[in-house]
Amino acid sequence: MKKFVNDPQQFVAEMLKGIALANPGTLKYVPEYNLIMRSDAPSDDKVSIVQGSGSGHEPAHVMIVGKGMLDAACPGDVFAAPPMDYVLETSKLLNSAKGVLHIINNYTGDRMAFDMGREMAEADGVTIGTLIVDDDVAVKDSTYTVGRRGVAGNFFVIKAVGAASERGADLDELLRIGNKVNSVTRTMGMALTSCTPPAKGSPLFELGEDEMEMGVGIHGEPGRRREKLASANAIVDELLEAVVSDLPFSQGDEVALMINGLGGTPISELYLLYGYAHEQLTKRGINVRRNYVGEYCTSLDMAGTSITLSRLDDEITELLAAPAQVAIRTF
Amino acid sequence: MKKFVNDPQQFVAEMLKGIALANPGTLKYVPEYNLIMRSDAPSDDKVSIVQGSGSGHEPAHVMIVGKGMLDAACPGDVFAAPPMDYVLETSKLLNSAKGVLHIINNYTGDRMAFDMGREMAEADGVTIGTLIVDDDVAVKDSTYTVGRRGVAGNFFVIKAVGAASERGADLDELLRIGNKVNSVTRTMGMALTSCTPPAKGSPLFELGEDEMEMGVGIHGEPGRRREKLASANAIVDELLEAVVSDLPFSQGDEVALMINGLGGTPISELYLLYGYAHEQLTKRGINVRRNYVGEYCTSLDMAGTSITLSRLDDEITELLAAPAQVAIRTF
Repeated sequence: MKKFVNDPQQFVAEMLKGIALANPGTLKYVPEYNLIMRSDAPSDDKVSIVQGSGSGHEPAHVMIVGKGMLDAACPGDVFAAPPMDYVLETSKLLNSAKGVLHIINNYTGDRMAFDMGREMAEADGVTIGTLIVDDDVAVKDSTYTVGRRGVAGNFFVIKAVGAASERGADLDELLRIGNKVNSVTRTMGMALTSCTPPAKGSPLFELGEDEMEMGVGIHGEPGRRREKLASANAIVDELLEAVVSDLPFSQGDEVALMINGLGGTPISELYLLYGYAHEQLTKRGINVRRNYVGEYCTSLDMAGTSITLSRLDDEITELLAAPAQVAIRTF
Repeated sequence: MKKFVNDPQQFVAEMLKGIALANPGTLKYVPEYNLIMRSDAPSDDKVSIVQGSGSGHEPAHVMIVGKGMLDAACPGDVFAAPPMDYVLETSKLLNSAKGVLHIINNYTGDRMAFDMGREMAEADGVTIGTLIVDDDVAVKDSTYTVGRRGVAGNFFVIKAVGAASERGADLDELLRIGNKVNSVTRTMGMALTSCTPPAKGSPLFELGEDEMEMGVGIHGEPGRRREKLASANAIVDELLEAVVSDLPFSQGDEVALMINGLGGTPISELYLLYGYAHEQLTKRGINVRRNYVGEYCTSLDMAGTSITLSRLDDEITELLAAPAQVAIRTF
């Protein structure tokens, strides 16, 4: 798979520079820490919300910094956790009288970096709360995880706490909301193709022309099993069954349904998947009240998708519907 | 390249069904004519704006139907012009006292379908104006075109006339605005990979691992030349030079800059391209006042990009900044 790249070592830095140049009034770029932050952050009226993780999952997380979402993101290199000093310096720069909230997708490398960064920042007087997202039902423990992985469901957690933080919610309230959203959110993904990290220049793993990886992780790590390539509807059936039966979601539930593209799948195909998923949920008596079709958490140029369901109550629905303003396209 | 597909013959219909299910309050789907239309259209207070063209370019055009953009889109099958009776029936369904505006990307098949559909609709008493978009500087005449092709710059034309039509502008005024935007808009694209139509199941053309197609069309048709794969910056240099020198854009101009993904290129790479393009324009004294980074007009799953520049004046700037609400993601 060919890519737009100059020096692979500068891939992340050049992307971050582009984000900053495209958002001159609202975002600030601090190259020393791969840091993209709101120009108007921190504010003592608001908890600062920070996420790190590896790069290669865009728009997560550097492209969802903005009003009503993240206050800052400090990614590592492609598929690599941010160094702990990025976490430390970001936490200090974003320090607010109301504290700082770290949101971590459950991957061992990210947790280590954030645990150590947090400890050091706390020693410097920063008050920090931590939310762990672990929405992926595919596997219990995995190549890079103890416990379930955190993937696209992360978006719902960030959207909800981002909205609440704009209204002045304190750290405890954000932890309550974030943990609640995470507890009712479930995801499973699958890959049609591998992905190619810029520094490697070749696919991360091999997948035959008639194969797909069911339950794939967002770094190409193995999922539940490799299967014969199936029809779009059969793929949706398998992903939905895994997600619905896990919480479980049941008749009468109101949900947000996300069809997430993994980077190389065109939006036409995502809407085709959405139509069938929506119909199948309706048949189960599960009511799709909000929908999200597009790229939210990708794996570079991987062709594939993940399906996320989040069970709604009035509080979550209202927070998801609140306005937000981020780097990626708005008309 | 593997795809999410059931019956390839149903690919477009299943995608359109998904769009309708995701937008129950605002969009209506009429399967007989592949028609996606605003639920509240037509209105006698507003010119109805219609675009057709082949499918496979999403979000263009079925995903940009909505307030402030298109009133309806009636695509053909993948990379195939809509049949003329789709154009006829869409024009009749969207008939308004203020008339109907057809926006056509300059491809011979689309022009034929719209010319014939228009003639028949006019015989039925519908008043119709036609805007031709031909922003692609790559080639003069091409595989499927007499004259220049119409590609991603189309977005700026639709956005401007869409905004003006919401304020009650009449057909003549929309033709004036649309032709003005088209006259100051230039695009060139390039491909890193081919694309795979669902019904074909294999790539449309072959491109070696060390090759790229410069000036490619949005149906994979040849461009200016096949070249050795180059760095991201060198690609931007070549595309920008072609676009800037064509109008030409010159020192002191204010522009909208679009980095459009062709379907298989991740958003991280598009922002990397944006950063360098923005810097190079700044060096030429060309001021990027508005920016657009993402997928606007794709070619299925093709990895590649196009760069569009549109010269701004106060009128165009204000129309581009006006609110719009379409199917694709908003927070």
